[in-house]
Amino acid sequence: MISVAIAGVTGYTGQQLFRLLHGHPDLCVTQLFAHSSVGQPLAQLCPELAPIAGTLDVRPFVPSDIQDCDLLFLALPHGCSHAYMAGLLKKGIRVIDLSADFRFEDVSIFNQTYDVCHEAPELLSQIPYVLPELYEADLQEIQAAAVPGCYATASLLALTPLCRAFTELGSIVIDAKSGVSGAGKGPTASLQFCEIEGAFSAYATGTHRHEPEIAAMLGHDVFFSPHLLPMSRGILLNCYVMMPHGFNMKEIQACYKDFYGAKPFVRFLAQGQNPNTKWVTGSNGCMLGFSGSSEKGVLVIHAMIDNLIKGASGQAMQIANRFFGFDETVALPVCPQLL
Amino acid sequence: MISVAIAGVTGYTGQQLFRLLHGHPDLCVTQLFAHSSVGQPLAQLCPELAPIAGTLDVRPFVPSDIQDCDLLFLALPHGCSHAYMAGLLKKGIRVIDLSADFRFEDVSIFNQTYDVCHEAPELLSQIPYVLPELYEADLQEIQAAAVPGCYATASLLALTPLCRAFTELGSIVIDAKSGVSGAGKGPTASLQFCEIEGAFSAYATGTHRHEPEIAAMLGHDVFFSPHLLPMSRGILLNCYVMMPHGFNMKEIQACYKDFYGAKPFVRFLAQGQNPNTKWVTGSNGCMLGFSGSSEKGVLVIHAMIDNLIKGASGQAMQIANRFFGFDETVALPVCPQLL
Amino acid sequence: MISVAIAGVTGYTGQQLFRLLHGHPDLCVTQLFAHSSVGQPLAQLCPELAPIAGTLDVRPFVPSDIQDCDLLFLALPHGCSHAYMAGLLKKGIRVIDLSADFRFEDVSIFNQTYDVCHEAPELLSQIPYVLPELYEADLQEIQAAAVPGCYATASLLALTPLCRAFTELGSIVIDAKSGVSGAGKGPTASLQFCEIEGAFSAYATGTHRHEPEIAAMLGHDVFFSPHLLPMSRGILLNCYVMMPHGFNMKEIQACYKDFYGAKPFVRFLAQGQNPNTKWVTGSNGCMLGFSGSSEKGVLVIHAMIDNLIKGASGQAMQIANRFFGFDETVALPVCPQLL
Amino acid sequence: MISVAIAGVTGYTGQQLFRLLHGHPDLCVTQLFAHSSVGQPLAQLCPELAPIAGTLDVRPFVPSDIQDCDLLFLALPHGCSHAYMAGLLKKGIRVIDLSADFRFEDVSIFNQTYDVCHEAPELLSQIPYVLPELYEADLQEIQAAAVPGCYATASLLALTPLCRAFTELGSIVIDAKSGVSGAGKGPTASLQFCEIEGAFSAYATGTHRHEPEIAAMLGHDVFFSPHLLPMSRGILLNCYVMMPHGFNMKEIQACYKDFYGAKPFVRFLAQGQNPNTKWVTGSNGCMLGFSGSSEKGVLVIHAMIDNLIKGASGQAMQIANRFFGFDETVALPVCPQLL
Repeated sequence: MISVAIAGVTGYTGQQLFRLLHGHPDLCVTQLFAHSSVGQPLAQLCPELAPIAGTLDVRPFVPSDIQDCDLLFLALPHGCSHAYMAGLLKKGIRVIDLSADFRFEDVSIFNQTYDVCHEAPELLSQIPYVLPELYEADLQEIQAAAVPGCYATASLLALTPLCRAFTELGSIVIDAKSGVSGAGKGPTASLQFCEIEGAFSAYATGTHRHEPEIAAMLGHDVFFSPHLLPMSRGILLNCYVMMPHGFNMKEIQACYKDFYGAKPFVRFLAQGQNPNTKWVTGSNGCMLGFSGSSEKGVLVIHAMIDNLIKGASGQAMQIANRFFGFDETVALPVCPQLL
Repeated sequence: MISVAIAGVTGYTGQQLFRLLHGHPDLCVTQLFAHSSVGQPLAQLCPELAPIAGTLDVRPFVPSDIQDCDLLFLALPHGCSHAYMAGLLKKGIRVIDLSADFRFEDVSIFNQTYDVCHEAPELLSQIPYVLPELYEADLQEIQAAAVPGCYATASLLALTPLCRAFTELGSIVIDAKSGVSGAGKGPTASLQFCEIEGAFSAYATGTHRHEPEIAAMLGHDVFFSPHLLPMSRGILLNCYVMMPHGFNMKEIQACYKDFYGAKPFVRFLAQGQNPNTKWVTGSNGCMLGFSGSSEKGVLVIHAMIDNLIKGASGQAMQIANRFFGFDETVALPVCPQLL
Repeated sequence: MISVAIAGVTGYTGQQLFRLLHGHPDLCVTQLFAHSSVGQPLAQLCPELAPIAGTLDVRPFVPSDIQDCDLLFLALPHGCSHAYMAGLLKKGIRVIDLSADFRFEDVSIFNQTYDVCHEAPELLSQIPYVLPELYEADLQEIQAAAVPGCYATASLLALTPLCRAFTELGSIVIDAKSGVSGAGKGPTASLQFCEIEGAFSAYATGTHRHEPEIAAMLGHDVFFSPHLLPMSRGILLNCYVMMPHGFNMKEIQACYKDFYGAKPFVRFLAQGQNPNTKWVTGSNGCMLGFSGSSEKGVLVIHAMIDNLIKGASGQAMQIANRFFGFDETVALPVCPQLL
Repeated sequence: MISVAIAGVTGYTGQQLFRLLHGHPDLCVTQLFAHSSVGQPLAQLCPELAPIAGTLDVRPFVPSDIQDCDLLFLALPHGCSHAYMAGLLKKGIRVIDLSADFRFEDVSIFNQTYDVCHEAPELLSQIPYVLPELYEADLQEIQAAAVPGCYATASLLALTPLCRAFTELGSIVIDAKSGVSGAGKGPTASLQFCEIEGAFSAYATGTHRHEPEIAAMLGHDVFFSPHLLPMSRGILLNCYVMMPHGFNMKEIQACYKDFYGAKPFVRFLAQGQNPNTKWVTGSNGCMLGFSGSSEKGVLVIHAMIDNLIKGASGQAMQIANRFFGFDETVALPVCPQLL
């Protein structure tokens, strides 16, 4: 068995990760850490997990306390991992970091976007940004990986085939809508139930932290416009791409089917099937669809993921599967949860 | 007192209209009609309205049964009004039609969009499409008016000042999100609670019936992309306008403030205030906001309305106020309902 | 005009109160206070209220700063009013307190229930607990009143007629369910949207702070069992009363109709109408209904209120109307908000 | 592999069953039936299931069309199974019926409760009512079983140990609250999203069809009072039992722990843990908790299940596991889904 630790297990992402790992035949969680808990049983800190928590305790995260660990998931808030990474790698631990800390090659973009001073800029080029469907190389030789953000995952899966195949693209606008869990456990006044129920809002239009992440990985400018939905889980985003008038929609669809042909988690909407987050909620799938008007020169690529699974914990476990040479689908749900 | 009748009082729009009219000092509802009810008390058909229903009955809608009526609101499904209108006008009744039947000047667009054969095409040019903030002329001499649809109301209030002031606009994409009540009372399998809770979906991308209504009134092509939110009330839409790089945002904002200066129901987001449907839920207000990137040539105009009030019943009563020379704000809520 | 001040205007209760008072023809809000705000405009602190906020500022609550005030609403957290009350009364200001501070005649119950030491126990007997439907005496001569809590309002309206008319009642169990807004604005980790959506919970079963308030006012022991609903507004509670087998349901219903006959805000479910919070949401009404089994000796009294209106702000304004000799319904909604 | 068929796969219960069976190592779904579909692929009828639907078609349910089937799940509406059962048993197929048709020993109660005339009353005594935690006998020799209803499952797990151990119980009131999915897919006007969001209602107080089912199995009268929650999944119910004053709570809790000691799906709330549907949503677990007042003679037993899993499909698969001698937990989720 491969011995696994999670740092940040009490957050939404950490909890999902623990739950997914519980179903894995070869990865075994043996150590748990969190920022603010001292030696309490997981079953008590997170009663949802009690049925599978066994006797595991959650300890304060001190890297030197990690023992006999093959793989560490860092599910900490942004801006925490960069200070730990060098020490962890020196201990020979393999690390999958779910935060933004190692997503950028250019440290200045990170520092500016997250308003911190990165302590390990020299590691940025060594730790790859792994969106599994776009990262073909073998991961078995790699010691650490950065997991893309949820918005970036959906956006890049939606746009990468187009941007690689077509060079004459006009403006790209991404209108993205996310469930509230993407914002973490809080508590935050603006995320109280009464503030969210029955309300829909836009935020950070054109100024969101995922915009530079997406643009950098895509190699094309984007205008990113996120929204908060009155629901917990799921992202649906529309990429509006200004195209030459008379563009060929069938050719574009064929290009995507070719690009993702063999990928187990990417699926396409059927003819007449509306884009809907429920096709992916609870699964590690990414659903893509196409609309638009050739006459008006507007192409729409719809993308749906579950922000907590494909957008975070599921993707991290998909990467872990490839770290150890397993099939990348092991223990990952392909079917949504239904209701 | 002005004697008022409502046809279609049992629908969501009709109920709201009845409730709003109850607070009006000069309009008095004296007759109620619906398609499928025979002589039942309103208090029984719509228990929500029981506290203000008095002893009013709801009768099947037969135009010849209308008596002593100064003003009739037609809150019927699309495709019902056009057959009645000529007869109603001949009786000398003033009519405010909330359906799509008299929204188009070009009958062929209506017939194609709604898949019916309009029986009174000769009336289309006589019955104005009244979006009060954009319709300056006196309404006191007018016998009938068509009320804009909810998506069209928000879109036109968002885009008209721009389209009138700037001639060199590129593509316009409207990404619109609406609460479920816009779809009526059903029952519809896809609108059952379990299908909507926790799910967000797109539909009719680029093919929605409001697209030609918006384009026709705006005099500019638009690409319209609607969505269904897991909430009952409210529309938030973003108009993405491709602009010349380096466009002047301040100039645009000034243009809007100038355009809507004196209008009581149009308001603008304050600096730092996120676009949110809750600023307008339950009110007849329309809230507008601006984002974008001059560098990328993308202008965003955010618009929020309550689809049942400003998008339907409130707007109809606003028009009624102007029909009779009252201040257009009489008995219309300006403050949202809070939670 | 009567000059009104609100202390605690930024809370959910305070905001509703401000909104209701805005519609009142004779009460005029001239001063606003809150605990944690210094001289900010209300329109900025509570953008929902911007359309009716005018230029009013919110100042820190210092009783000596109140000027020219006929009536003060205290919408502060529990445990704040008791220290201010004596000073306020001395200044000749009339006070309506929405907190629990003056709800108990017996100071020891208050001190124990709220874990504070009441500073003005001598005022407890002078400040009446005013549930308007149960408080017949003239309020024009009274300087201050305590407003019942939301659960207590619904429970007492449901049970008082029975407890007064029937002496041989067995155990009474109140199974109560409330929307989340009853818990205030927080932020509280357990009230984040993701914790509440799709979840229903019980809390404080048999140990809730409203239990002694209800029992004291009713003169009968009750077992109180509250729950948190995944919705913002509304209370529906069932009072299960163990009755002698063969009790006469019609007699009980007649007793209630007699008791509440002339009260404008108490209404009864019609035959076949299900108990539902939506019959009262947004209104100051209390809806009552009856079920049960005479054979099994179980009587059920259903009660529904909007916790923010009849359970707090609306009730406070109803009391204010009686303070000044107005009809108690002035500016209070009788019809729910519909959707 | 054991060959399995599902009749009624397109309903909420049938879909969940298909999804759960997909994860079972030894049960293989080979045939699907529904009432209203003719030869359409499952992936098209239920796009949620597309990722695991393979090429299975859904055929109209005609018992004679079933071929090579070891086990048939009947997930049809109430009142359909009784006409098919004799024929199915004659063909030697093992049947697990999720409807109410074989839940009663006394046919007259069934006929009266469901307003049909049962066509196979002679089978009622042969087909056991299997609530697995309460049904100790071996199921390997049994050809058919009736699955308890969702409310009955929670009620019986909550009350059976008490009713068996204590003979001097007073009145029992069950105040039950359920998510909307228990009512099926509809469409039903009263279950449209706009009717349910933000609203909580009681229905069939003292007259619900599960009341006789519960009372019959319990051997004790109950008063059953169900409610509809604004959420899709989950049941939380409180059983209020009138007890002798001074009853011993610790003794009762010990009795339950003894009773359910070895059962894998029954768990108890920890000290201080609130009853909450989220502890079980998405799992086959039943969570029990205890409150009450010995002084007032009121005992409260809280029970939580997921109505679609432990209350229907999961329980059916738990029974199937015992039919074939597997561990009853195989392929059944023990951990809730988290958010």
